[in-house]
Amino acid sequence: MSVSLDDIERARLLIQDNIVRTPLIYAPRLSARFDCRLFLKLETMQATGSFKDRGSLNRLLHLDDEQRRRGVVAMSAGNHAQGVAYHARRLGVPAKIVMPSFAPFSKVERTRSYGAEVILEGDTLDASAVRAREIVSEEGRTFIHPYDDDHIIAGQGSIGLEIMEDCPDVDAVIVPIGGGGVISGTAIAAQSLRPSVEVYGVESDRYPSMSRAIAGEAPSFGEATIADGIAVKVPGERTRPIVEERVREIFLCGDDDFERAIFLLLEEQKVVAEGAGAAGVAALLCNGERFRGRRVVVVVCGGNIDSRMLASVLARCLMYDSRILRLRIRIVDRPGEMSRLSGVIAACGSNILEIHHQRLFADIPAKEADIDAVVETSGVEHGEVIRGRLEEAGYRVRILKISTLNHTL
Amino acid sequence: MSVSLDDIERARLLIQDNIVRTPLIYAPRLSARFDCRLFLKLETMQATGSFKDRGSLNRLLHLDDEQRRRGVVAMSAGNHAQGVAYHARRLGVPAKIVMPSFAPFSKVERTRSYGAEVILEGDTLDASAVRAREIVSEEGRTFIHPYDDDHIIAGQGSIGLEIMEDCPDVDAVIVPIGGGGVISGTAIAAQSLRPSVEVYGVESDRYPSMSRAIAGEAPSFGEATIADGIAVKVPGERTRPIVEERVREIFLCGDDDFERAIFLLLEEQKVVAEGAGAAGVAALLCNGERFRGRRVVVVVCGGNIDSRMLASVLARCLMYDSRILRLRIRIVDRPGEMSRLSGVIAACGSNILEIHHQRLFADIPAKEADIDAVVETSGVEHGEVIRGRLEEAGYRVRILKISTLNHTL
Repeated sequence: MSVSLDDIERARLLIQDNIVRTPLIYAPRLSARFDCRLFLKLETMQATGSFKDRGSLNRLLHLDDEQRRRGVVAMSAGNHAQGVAYHARRLGVPAKIVMPSFAPFSKVERTRSYGAEVILEGDTLDASAVRAREIVSEEGRTFIHPYDDDHIIAGQGSIGLEIMEDCPDVDAVIVPIGGGGVISGTAIAAQSLRPSVEVYGVESDRYPSMSRAIAGEAPSFGEATIADGIAVKVPGERTRPIVEERVREIFLCGDDDFERAIFLLLEEQKVVAEGAGAAGVAALLCNGERFRGRRVVVVVCGGNIDSRMLASVLARCLMYDSRILRLRIRIVDRPGEMSRLSGVIAACGSNILEIHHQRLFADIPAKEADIDAVVETSGVEHGEVIRGRLEEAGYRVRILKISTLNHTL
Repeated sequence: MSVSLDDIERARLLIQDNIVRTPLIYAPRLSARFDCRLFLKLETMQATGSFKDRGSLNRLLHLDDEQRRRGVVAMSAGNHAQGVAYHARRLGVPAKIVMPSFAPFSKVERTRSYGAEVILEGDTLDASAVRAREIVSEEGRTFIHPYDDDHIIAGQGSIGLEIMEDCPDVDAVIVPIGGGGVISGTAIAAQSLRPSVEVYGVESDRYPSMSRAIAGEAPSFGEATIADGIAVKVPGERTRPIVEERVREIFLCGDDDFERAIFLLLEEQKVVAEGAGAAGVAALLCNGERFRGRRVVVVVCGGNIDSRMLASVLARCLMYDSRILRLRIRIVDRPGEMSRLSGVIAACGSNILEIHHQRLFADIPAKEADIDAVVETSGVEHGEVIRGRLEEAGYRVRILKISTLNHTL
């Protein structure tokens, strides 16, 4: 038996006092860009920064007294760990969370800060899962699955109920797919209330697990992705038929799409999203024409991006847009050259961020040198103006390009 | 005559169809940190990324036909420029915006993108203001003041109405003060509906203009501040008496508080705020005990922070928290040392971000070298573990500290 609208409504009643009723905000600038009416469901505003609170809490509330006493165990490198840890402590249920040894510091620390016992074990998620299953049999704890569980699906489904309250005439909902829990619950809720709502999924093209499973193909997966929240190898057995029945299409997006989507959400809408959280916008970047003129809700499912990673995405996207530019300039190696050179750049209204001298390994005469100047510009055109002025001043100049955010080495 | 609740309610009716009804979100993690019930009013979600939309639109809607035909002019380096430009275009009113020549590219571009004619003139805001006044007399355009105008104050006051709807039992509201428009309107609305609401202001300690004016002191101002949105030299004449009557206290915060507040909002609540937008959280950092146990609303007035600046704030705060650490390590300059050294760091579970060799200018024997290794840690304790392991391996190690975010040179 699959999850029903009733199950989701019951879950919502159970959890609503301890879950943030997240805002659905109209996104004027992204709407203009994609030529649709775009609304963002900000699950980033949940206590642990993702939608995982909903399902975890609903699951925990269905433990019996004996199960609560014995405690729970979960395995996760990310948001599921935090959702379970946070609500288990609130409910006084002892929680052990197995995380792979490569889990980022920030996620380990945060899971600990919620009061869970964190066990760092396994070089892969599969190895961590083995340890989690051992703990289940050794200690009689209940395993909390991240998605393949009807109580989890019903809990996440409360997102769909809220969307339909806030935007009853929605045409399409775009939801990231990892194991398929949140898209299953959301689709059941939304389509039960308005059968015409089209639901679309998004997967990382490095982890197209659900789409391959539905197509009857063998799983395949690539390297690390910034959308680590949806980098799932084995889609849910309970979620797959729901996705197959209800989801119109699953889009595959690349890491450069996810990066760009994180950047757009931050610059244009002041929303912090992790890679998986930005997947819906990534899908619009790749398939915008499908949604033109329509009322679209994108579920921004989580905001737990490492701050250093976010800083790096910002810098990379600025470089890609030529708003930060690296100019390689040949100079004669003598007093006064740096002053003259930097004067030309200043006269263009550009701020110099970094200066590097290339003396070794430059195939140039000993009396010359290459300067790499990293400068701020207002974009491609401004960069060309700076290059032109430098050339007028007698310098040989090359703009060091990056042509895409994720090129192979 | 000052602005009344009636004026604000009328303003709201006028503007509400073209203004985002911004969410008031509960902030669970910051509430725990400050031991209060904290709600954030996200004016960052307005179309132009700040509350300025409200006042600008209300002001523009009060132009008569002749004024609309002749157009408007405004002077601003930031959010006011965008608010006026955006709504003027929507209403078909020609807009000229004078911006100082030092205005950041991103703000100039965005103002242009909203269809305004941008005039870059003046090395200071005062010089730009002179140009704006000239345009008024030459072209008969209407000057749109950023705060010292009853229609502006009434428009911003709609924030107060929304706060009282969403959190009717609020104890205290904390609002940034630049010219005083948003705090005046918000205070009138909130206190008219609930006289016991305490309203607090926040200024940059480099621009304590309103607090000094109220104290009868001469203005004083310092250098550049990251809270540029409230770096105002001359507070409003219409707003000053309102602030004097209604605001319980004005807190002064330093740039390191603003930086930390930006970081906290981003990491803990996934909210993007500019310096001025984070001022309310900065005030809690400095005066948290005042709000313990109370229901507090912080108006996050804007999110228009330059992406490069935001990336830099993230990196700086990570360094300050020792989550990015610079270790200076003395090595013997021979093959294999880097491999051994980096092996020790790897065994601590730390990722190396950068390696720099210090050979010149290091007061050391020619056969030795100093390596600066920039590494990721989970915090101070982890940094000490890494240092200890390196010392056990025979290295001399120094952690290069920054003791505060804003030290003088």
